[in-house]
Amino acid sequence: MQRVSEAVEAVDLGGFEHYMLKEIHEQPRALAATLGLGSEHHIDDARFGEGASAVFDKVRAVQVVACGTSYHAGLVARYWLEELCGIPCSVEVASEFRYRSRARREGTLLVTVSQSGETADTLAALRDQSEGEFIASLVIANVDHSSLVRESDLVFLTRAGTEIGVASTKAFTTQLVAFLMLAVVLGRRHGLSEVRERELVDALHQLPDCVASTLQLDADIKRLSEAFILKHHALFLGRGIQYPVAAEGALKLKEISYIHAEAYPAGELKHGPLALVDADMPVVAVAPGDELLEKLKSNLEEVRSRGGELFVFADRKAGLRDEPRVHVLNMPHCPAVIQPVTYTVALQLLSYHVAVQKGTDVDKPRNLAKSVTVE
Amino acid sequence: MQRVSEAVEAVDLGGFEHYMLKEIHEQPRALAATLGLGSEHHIDDARFGEGASAVFDKVRAVQVVACGTSYHAGLVARYWLEELCGIPCSVEVASEFRYRSRARREGTLLVTVSQSGETADTLAALRDQSEGEFIASLVIANVDHSSLVRESDLVFLTRAGTEIGVASTKAFTTQLVAFLMLAVVLGRRHGLSEVRERELVDALHQLPDCVASTLQLDADIKRLSEAFILKHHALFLGRGIQYPVAAEGALKLKEISYIHAEAYPAGELKHGPLALVDADMPVVAVAPGDELLEKLKSNLEEVRSRGGELFVFADRKAGLRDEPRVHVLNMPHCPAVIQPVTYTVALQLLSYHVAVQKGTDVDKPRNLAKSVTVE
Repeated sequence: MQRVSEAVEAVDLGGFEHYMLKEIHEQPRALAATLGLGSEHHIDDARFGEGASAVFDKVRAVQVVACGTSYHAGLVARYWLEELCGIPCSVEVASEFRYRSRARREGTLLVTVSQSGETADTLAALRDQSEGEFIASLVIANVDHSSLVRESDLVFLTRAGTEIGVASTKAFTTQLVAFLMLAVVLGRRHGLSEVRERELVDALHQLPDCVASTLQLDADIKRLSEAFILKHHALFLGRGIQYPVAAEGALKLKEISYIHAEAYPAGELKHGPLALVDADMPVVAVAPGDELLEKLKSNLEEVRSRGGELFVFADRKAGLRDEPRVHVLNMPHCPAVIQPVTYTVALQLLSYHVAVQKGTDVDKPRNLAKSVTVE
Repeated sequence: MQRVSEAVEAVDLGGFEHYMLKEIHEQPRALAATLGLGSEHHIDDARFGEGASAVFDKVRAVQVVACGTSYHAGLVARYWLEELCGIPCSVEVASEFRYRSRARREGTLLVTVSQSGETADTLAALRDQSEGEFIASLVIANVDHSSLVRESDLVFLTRAGTEIGVASTKAFTTQLVAFLMLAVVLGRRHGLSEVRERELVDALHQLPDCVASTLQLDADIKRLSEAFILKHHALFLGRGIQYPVAAEGALKLKEISYIHAEAYPAGELKHGPLALVDADMPVVAVAPGDELLEKLKSNLEEVRSRGGELFVFADRKAGLRDEPRVHVLNMPHCPAVIQPVTYTVALQLLSYHVAVQKGTDVDKPRNLAKSVTVE
């Protein structure tokens, strides 16, 4: 494993206590830069590189391959690609993908995702593809001239800027923007209406402000975080597109606070993990104000009735209130399609405050490297 | 939630201390009954119901939908279907599948999996399919005349017999047999050679004996289990087809011992969970004697060098030995394709012995029901 060169860490902390906190707060700017739309309401195919239009015309399926946090970006993207474009999307961990015999799907675009563009298993997956397995490769990366960027047919560069904190924050949310933009350009070819496209681009335009509003909840989230300091476990629950958001929230807490946090699709609770729930296992639920909220409420009731303490991140319009053993964080009301980003930001702050209060090395958590360039 | 009728529990314990232990030991018989091959070396399409041949001729992709342990059976099956048949296979948790907008894949067979045949989310997924979304439905179930059996086009009944323990054991391993048989009949249509088919059926014939040999390791596994009694966490690692086996092993430990066990594909360790590893987090690795063993060994070294204690289940031919903080359980040497079953059985015994020594209610763990017939 190699650490990012120490020189890079000369980047100014800008008054923040840690790079991670600085990078969390840089997200409105990083997201806007990645969008790069100005006042226009059109996303050009060319954003994905020369020749993108011809490739996109042929795409019938998408295979995302990545590791860690970038893998979670792919899991979110799957919901967008299948719902907005009707394009089948599979997402797989690179270390698994590269070593198994895979069935082929006609017209598949390979999409790799890596902040550094150097992640060893992801790079190997790109290199190991068999003749004719994919129609082309696209990488979503944050570092120009990296190996994945050099070796892929198409490239989307996120504009997150240098990320120093080992636990990825702004790189992840800018990857999500890249994927939503990809869903728009592919959707255009698969029945996405002009009206819906305009709505999606409008939502993307609102994203930096929505994230800025989320950041204003910092003090409230810090207050919630106090309940986790003495805990050794946590469950993160979500449904639908918020399940991978819960997974990313759990990973963040693991990485920097060393609390054993695990995510589950909320509907799986009864099929096993409910046995773990007691007063020592706080449960975090990501409950946006959509059609799945009622379902999630009944899952949450199961948790509470078994002595669990609940922390619910919900749209303020959902009208959830604090109750005994239920703590509600009211999230700014934002377009549904960009909620995976805003909820992610709230969960980043939660992990950050838990870790700081536990006194861990937030920017360089034990055992982990920023960029995993060996297998 | 409804419990299985108390009357059913009049089933004899047969000298075993718990139903779960009895059911673990019934597996050689249950697997042989499910195979139902006698001395023949041919698996008839008709095993999957009337009209199966015509359906199988049209299958170009498989979508597995299930919950909990049955979902893990689907994850194992995906490796078999893609490797042996070259048929793209997706596997999804029923509560997620039913509530999202899904892209269509031409020629897809829907396969649902449920011990009881009454799992609410899985049944709803079968019922909610849209017009023409699938070419047909197949259920793998253990209870005849159940809702899923009545409402599916094709049916494979496992012959596990009544399962009383809430934590599924023999139902899971017989589901695996059903899936491997499905891979054979579909593979025949997709380039699986006669030689390879005969090898696979030979391996299936050896399965009951291989499982019986695994059961003879009971005392060794009980000895290993003592190290877990005072722990609150565990990581389960696997690669390739053994990753879902690790996931099922972790779920079993969660369900009956209330230890927070979580599974990861071994290659993901560096991308986050390694931060959790210390002397309080035992790591279980499923390391069959195949080409991925060397990779897994390097992952294991990472764990040990960070103070973790390792429990490795490995083929005796792999030649792993006990070392300081590395405990090896030498598994019987069996054909690679059936190792997911034998390793599962070993992990069932591990969970059982941990739970008994912790004094939990093994057959009726807290908060869980045998058959989840509500959402």
